[in-house]
Amino acid sequence: MFELAEAGNRLEKDDYEKAAAELRPALLALEQKLREAKDMAVAVLIGGVEGAGKIETANLLMSWLDPRSVEVNAFGPDDESRGRPPFYRFWMHLPPKGKLGIFYGSWYTDPIVRFASGDMKKAQFAHELEKIRTFERHLAAERVLLVKFWLHLSKDAQKKRRKKLAKDPRKAWMLATPQEHRYFKLYDEFYAASEEALRVTSTAEAPWTVVEAADRRWREATVARTLLDAMSAAMEARPAAGPKPMAVPKKKPRTALDAIDLTRTVARAVYEKELEELQADIGRLAWEALERGVSTALVFEGWDAAGKGGAIRRLTQGLDARNYRVVPIGAPAEEERARPYLWRFWRHLPPSGRLTVFDRSWYGRVLVERVEGFCRPEDWKRAYSEINDFEAQLAANGTRLAKFWLHITPEEQVRRFEERRDTPHKRYKLTEDDWRNRRKWNAYLAALDEMFARTSTSIAPWTIVPAEDKLGGRLCVLRTYRDLLKSALKKSRKTRQAVVLD
Amino acid sequence: MFELAEAGNRLEKDDYEKAAAELRPALLALEQKLREAKDMAVAVLIGGVEGAGKIETANLLMSWLDPRSVEVNAFGPDDESRGRPPFYRFWMHLPPKGKLGIFYGSWYTDPIVRFASGDMKKAQFAHELEKIRTFERHLAAERVLLVKFWLHLSKDAQKKRRKKLAKDPRKAWMLATPQEHRYFKLYDEFYAASEEALRVTSTAEAPWTVVEAADRRWREATVARTLLDAMSAAMEARPAAGPKPMAVPKKKPRTALDAIDLTRTVARAVYEKELEELQADIGRLAWEALERGVSTALVFEGWDAAGKGGAIRRLTQGLDARNYRVVPIGAPAEEERARPYLWRFWRHLPPSGRLTVFDRSWYGRVLVERVEGFCRPEDWKRAYSEINDFEAQLAANGTRLAKFWLHITPEEQVRRFEERRDTPHKRYKLTEDDWRNRRKWNAYLAALDEMFARTSTSIAPWTIVPAEDKLGGRLCVLRTYRDLLKSALKKSRKTRQAVVLD
Repeated sequence: MFELAEAGNRLEKDDYEKAAAELRPALLALEQKLREAKDMAVAVLIGGVEGAGKIETANLLMSWLDPRSVEVNAFGPDDESRGRPPFYRFWMHLPPKGKLGIFYGSWYTDPIVRFASGDMKKAQFAHELEKIRTFERHLAAERVLLVKFWLHLSKDAQKKRRKKLAKDPRKAWMLATPQEHRYFKLYDEFYAASEEALRVTSTAEAPWTVVEAADRRWREATVARTLLDAMSAAMEARPAAGPKPMAVPKKKPRTALDAIDLTRTVARAVYEKELEELQADIGRLAWEALERGVSTALVFEGWDAAGKGGAIRRLTQGLDARNYRVVPIGAPAEEERARPYLWRFWRHLPPSGRLTVFDRSWYGRVLVERVEGFCRPEDWKRAYSEINDFEAQLAANGTRLAKFWLHITPEEQVRRFEERRDTPHKRYKLTEDDWRNRRKWNAYLAALDEMFARTSTSIAPWTIVPAEDKLGGRLCVLRTYRDLLKSALKKSRKTRQAVVLD
Repeated sequence: MFELAEAGNRLEKDDYEKAAAELRPALLALEQKLREAKDMAVAVLIGGVEGAGKIETANLLMSWLDPRSVEVNAFGPDDESRGRPPFYRFWMHLPPKGKLGIFYGSWYTDPIVRFASGDMKKAQFAHELEKIRTFERHLAAERVLLVKFWLHLSKDAQKKRRKKLAKDPRKAWMLATPQEHRYFKLYDEFYAASEEALRVTSTAEAPWTVVEAADRRWREATVARTLLDAMSAAMEARPAAGPKPMAVPKKKPRTALDAIDLTRTVARAVYEKELEELQADIGRLAWEALERGVSTALVFEGWDAAGKGGAIRRLTQGLDARNYRVVPIGAPAEEERARPYLWRFWRHLPPSGRLTVFDRSWYGRVLVERVEGFCRPEDWKRAYSEINDFEAQLAANGTRLAKFWLHITPEEQVRRFEERRDTPHKRYKLTEDDWRNRRKWNAYLAALDEMFARTSTSIAPWTIVPAEDKLGGRLCVLRTYRDLLKSALKKSRKTRQAVVLD
């Protein structure tokens, strides 16, 4: 793969200047179009061997483009994730629509370095590359254009380049970083690891461009030309079908919910006693989770007025406010609309040992957005596997997840709507949306059925909460969370040493 | 101050329920008004002695209000600032306009705990309280309503409360935190420290409400009533005068800029040689700064086409992209408009050992916003002292700051505009705004004169860069930055041990 990039290509000064005179205004024009249309983002990855001119290439793009639409993201040791999955920091730095993000160091760096240095086994490396493919497919589907450059130098060219650097007082520091010398000695290992990585991740939606980097002018012209072509092709492509609301089935669809017994009730006295025990258990377990760095996330979905808020309040009542966060999910903000759908959930993931409660969640994509036609069909269709990948990353990271669907009958819902209407301090909870959603009950049932079928996994199963009886529903939620904490802590006691926080 | 809160006030169940029935819908109505008007934010601080019911009060507000407009911010040990000034994390968590932020633990916690425990001297404590007054005055001026509650318990009441907690399995964990017992033993010290803090920081714009906390019902009703009154008073108050553009003086005002010699030029060969030396020095010093955790920030202001971009590029060319960030400041985004003005700059402050380059800056407030009337007169008038406070916090934190004004003549500016117009890849840089700003040259001169006079301080002096000669201007910028790094490192070598990064 890299042999082609050792052909000795060069560009003479005149040719370079001619090319630059054409490329610069063309790139600027596209960038302006991007900024104005705001319907896609561009992520430019600059990878390659040490000394091939990665920093210079980032600087070139910064100087040729209008810096107002460019963000440079450089990644050193990970001091941002604080216990969240490794992709967290890349998610957080995704460029918004209308902008161009340059990634100097990226999601490829760690796997390649570790595999080349012998710190990662081949099977694990293959798995990491698979995760990258999934991530990039996801970005591409949400109109993040990926332009990936690999700057290549032959072993000889790299040696020459090092000699030249050592003599240039402005650049000698580049050789002084601790990893530089080590990487140089591992040239062959890096060669093999990079080739494997590029082979597996050169996909239709996110291909690599290997750039012969020995000659600065050739390198720069190649990068600029490739970026220009990729951007102009992507900006011509337009999303196909528009959003369309779901048809409401006339007949009530059969679903997993039919099997739920909604008739059982709990006596107030029994409830009070068990609630007290559960809150005490959860309070105690939550401290241990904090000490051991066991993070948890809870998803609350359910029919309007099914009692999500009340259940969340009972659950958090005994917790220290510093250690959990309730995130209500409503209509997305400007900055959220500008990024891939899951961005707004990634940003709220709990750091080490904490809890995040999502009051509505990423399942909105396959429920309300599907039913109301707030997104295009391919968006919600793709969402099941994106969601499963997302939850698998949480699980792999040790973040335990429980997902609740609070279930009631349509008759009970009406009773609760009427109660809200008639109680001054509850009136705000009832909106026109609630009545509209209600008329689409059967559409929601159909969407729910598919959701349960496709996203109830062994690592992140759904808990259907019989919430017709409010008290019983709350106990079910708290019991599930207590058991989740217990099992997570049991596992953590086995596998890790306790960490004592200061 | 606290004696009044030991009067033994109680509320009977009936009275409480009557009060709640009135307060809840009223609070909800105000909250809705807040959410819709989006012209102010509310910050509710909940402080007080251990065991007085701070968590319960936060939970009460969460359950009485619509959680969609409420954010709970709880602060434990500081793991966010990573070398930025201590107020960084409070800035980052300010509620946006239209929302209500509950602060459980706040900017008061650390000074009070440290002073009460004997870890902070009296003079330092007084200084910390003064900084808090300044911070809160700033927030209040930008329509963040501060409602501060101090929940008080007498020593006896606290003892009783602890006994009760120990017996309640749901709450016994509250006594199990390491600091709880220690704080209890220091009751008198905390009493004195808190009283001093409340006395100094009970200002007209941000008064404290001391709440007798022994009786839950009394406590809750008092908190709710106070919040209601504060919100409704603040929502009636409306900002006075609207924005107004500055008059353009007919005669050119005399300014500090008149003394700058713009006639000197540097020969290309001299420039090349010195540039190379400067870039080499800066590259080397920047690595040492990273190792020693010495952070720097640079502000670039100047006439349009004065060469800010070119100077920034020369300066960053020799740096590792992971260690610096260029932040172009244009029109603020939605999330930025929703917070106090300086928020958008706080968020970009460099973490430990890094550099942030601001391409335009917080000085926009007293330049373009003043000249064009983008803000109200009281906003830019207040800005000088807000800016000086901000820069003093950077200095106190060891973040070194240099501020550049790139100066050229109006004649040179026209030449450069025309060159931009005639060069395809520079054309995008020239906008209608540039010509408009030019017509206001004299207004800018007057604004600049006041800016230099009021914000050139010994900790953050302005450097006026003679930029008529581009080459000379760039050298001046790089020289200033090199000297800044040198002096900062010299100081750091004296005062700190070197820290070796992994």
